[in-house]
Amino acid sequence: MNLLSFIAPDGRETWGRIEGECVTDFGARIADLPDLQAALCTGRLRDPALSVQSGDYRSSDITFLPVIPNPKKILCVGINYGAHAEETGRTVAAAPSMFSRFADTLTAHLGPILLPSVSTHLDFEGELAVVIGRSGRYIEEADALSYVAGYTCFNDSSIRDYQKHSVTAGKNFPKTGALGPWMATEGLDPARLQLETRLNGVVVQRASTQMLIYSVSRIIAFASQFTALTPGTIISTGTPEGVGSRRDPQLWMKRGDVVEVEISGIGVLSNRIEDERHV
Amino acid sequence: MNLLSFIAPDGRETWGRIEGECVTDFGARIADLPDLQAALCTGRLRDPALSVQSGDYRSSDITFLPVIPNPKKILCVGINYGAHAEETGRTVAAAPSMFSRFADTLTAHLGPILLPSVSTHLDFEGELAVVIGRSGRYIEEADALSYVAGYTCFNDSSIRDYQKHSVTAGKNFPKTGALGPWMATEGLDPARLQLETRLNGVVVQRASTQMLIYSVSRIIAFASQFTALTPGTIISTGTPEGVGSRRDPQLWMKRGDVVEVEISGIGVLSNRIEDERHV
Repeated sequence: MNLLSFIAPDGRETWGRIEGECVTDFGARIADLPDLQAALCTGRLRDPALSVQSGDYRSSDITFLPVIPNPKKILCVGINYGAHAEETGRTVAAAPSMFSRFADTLTAHLGPILLPSVSTHLDFEGELAVVIGRSGRYIEEADALSYVAGYTCFNDSSIRDYQKHSVTAGKNFPKTGALGPWMATEGLDPARLQLETRLNGVVVQRASTQMLIYSVSRIIAFASQFTALTPGTIISTGTPEGVGSRRDPQLWMKRGDVVEVEISGIGVLSNRIEDERHV
Repeated sequence: MNLLSFIAPDGRETWGRIEGECVTDFGARIADLPDLQAALCTGRLRDPALSVQSGDYRSSDITFLPVIPNPKKILCVGINYGAHAEETGRTVAAAPSMFSRFADTLTAHLGPILLPSVSTHLDFEGELAVVIGRSGRYIEEADALSYVAGYTCFNDSSIRDYQKHSVTAGKNFPKTGALGPWMATEGLDPARLQLETRLNGVVVQRASTQMLIYSVSRIIAFASQFTALTPGTIISTGTPEGVGSRRDPQLWMKRGDVVEVEISGIGVLSNRIEDERHV
């Protein structure tokens, strides 16, 4: 099942299910579950009401929102693919290097990724992201996947000249983190997914999540040592090699570019670069 | 004026003013301003209703909350005193190195600082913190102090063995960041404050904010480049030399210790260390 958050044609923020072009509005049908995070909180993803596929709208009639529009916690892994560790000259440590993003850094599928007026060094980072489904602390690695509600695509875009000052600065510009298009809740092995990032149709990153240095389970277990995970927490798992800043010549995203992150079994997250001076 | 958030004797979360032992409950008196962040949002800190000093409670009758109990953004500066930069072996860069904390890392004046069960390396960091009063982005340094609603004390405690993995891991354990006791809104020059951290009564850090590498204005201006500042945003300005991890022998905070951060013109933030295995 693919669950998403969106703005309905009547302007309501709601959530639901999408299969192909067909969107079912659960927010309108289930009165006490106004949003996807509430649905995760109540643990009612297996509610029979969620097996409905009424097709209230076509996907072209809605405006996508970030899968979780306003998560309390967004955690990301810095370096998690061997070849990307190599290209950045970083050595691999005992535990993942993590950072966090504010919720206002998120942007939705088909929404803009914003190039800030103070930089031209906007880089793509295609990643697999996890949506946490239930609360946990000190989670055992063996039990970690039971805390996952679903998987989605993330474009953890970076402002590289600010990232030199700190990862927090480089990763917290508004609308630089694209999350979506939806979360896939079933049938995925997070260690067997194919990830591809394309810039204007050209493949710029391609990897299997089999190559992750720290598995999804290990990341969840480690993160839950230092912070409580709650329903709607987003954890992104790091990007593979191929980022624009490590190319020669360097490749920066610019106004009008279209960047896509595709993950097998999930779908394609697509965004256009907009310049905040022209928004 | 000293503004604070607290739990009233009847159990309500509210906010008000404290002068000496005397607490005035603005949440109960001003119906449309239920909390301090709302008061900041509406820009009504100069409301005549706030000149009231009725003394609804004695300070011993209330439970302090973090000055802003649930801030959307908490930003901190990593290295901002020359001597602390020296003791950590870090060089000084063109812009401050910043990181963020989740709201659930906060603890109040007289609340516990929690030693997590997975570490014994709990270190103190006394700091001057700023409470932002109005929204801004791309703030000019010359104009930055007009965005400050008040100043408070912060104990930016660190779990050092996790900070080796990432600053995010070391700074996001629950209830490790003490914020309070209140915010002072008037008459302070942030470049002329005396800061002292005491552990069980012994002075362990002492500095003047005159020694800040990056001034409060410069930090606000820089942070506002990468993220929008909003009413209630907390920005902590970094700790001076003397932290426990850089001593020989190292000095870690342990269960039962009392740690205080005092800043001239503000007050004393006091916390007892509790072990989460015994809470």
